[in-house]
Amino acid sequence: MFDADDRRFLDLAIEQARIGWDEGGVPIGAALVHQGEVLAVGRNRRVQMGSAIRHGETDCIENAGRLTAKVYRASTLYTTLSPCFMCAGTSVLYDIPRIVVGENRTFEASESFLASRGVEVVVADDPACKALMDTMIAEKPELWAEDIGEEA
Amino acid sequence: MFDADDRRFLDLAIEQARIGWDEGGVPIGAALVHQGEVLAVGRNRRVQMGSAIRHGETDCIENAGRLTAKVYRASTLYTTLSPCFMCAGTSVLYDIPRIVVGENRTFEASESFLASRGVEVVVADDPACKALMDTMIAEKPELWAEDIGEEA
Repeated sequence: MFDADDRRFLDLAIEQARIGWDEGGVPIGAALVHQGEVLAVGRNRRVQMGSAIRHGETDCIENAGRLTAKVYRASTLYTTLSPCFMCAGTSVLYDIPRIVVGENRTFEASESFLASRGVEVVVADDPACKALMDTMIAEKPELWAEDIGEEA
Repeated sequence: MFDADDRRFLDLAIEQARIGWDEGGVPIGAALVHQGEVLAVGRNRRVQMGSAIRHGETDCIENAGRLTAKVYRASTLYTTLSPCFMCAGTSVLYDIPRIVVGENRTFEASESFLASRGVEVVVADDPACKALMDTMIAEKPELWAEDIGEEA
């Protein structure tokens, strides 16, 4: 189920991905939404911060600050790309029950793990998300390899 | 197999845990070691940085900076406490092949997941690591609940 609110929140994540790309970074963005309220947005900042742990989702969760379990457990995480295991594991740590994924054609690693932990994963198969990654991988293949822990 | 080098590197992680406790934080520390060379140490900095993603292991990996896949794949991660799913997922993202855990009596969530991904997990069952967590949980139970995504 991907409704009009999901569309709106995913668009915030896409906006973050575009900002990240314009900054010279990996174009992946995220948003954390609690009962219709946007708690935070974030984007991959590997390049911008020289970071190994600031993926779109983790940057967003960090930007949201310290939250109680109750808030996480009633939130949805939006991300333009299917989460890696770091970001999936972060969602599982905090029992975030629902993740809306922009696309998983470029990369998919953790969805069966998330399902096994009871997380609902909704894939929008959004062309804008895919186009951002296509451009990224064509122009900066080594940065993409680094971002997912692969050899360039 | 837990040898004299492992002891030495785990002791670096314990030192970080103690620094973190003295700072008012969660007493969990980590070290990342590549072929006998310490790349970085780190500690849980939830309190110190107002962070939701700086566990001992992720702080350590962040402190190590951007590394190539080849380096991660020949490294060992030392941590005073068995990793949560965020930290386990981060290790899996980067294909870190070996994790030395100080203790897993206080908390254990991800070890079967790590084993399923081919990660070697060595548990030292170290009394100093356990004592740090016993003190933490007795004195700051709400902070501990927050750190593992549970309701206080």
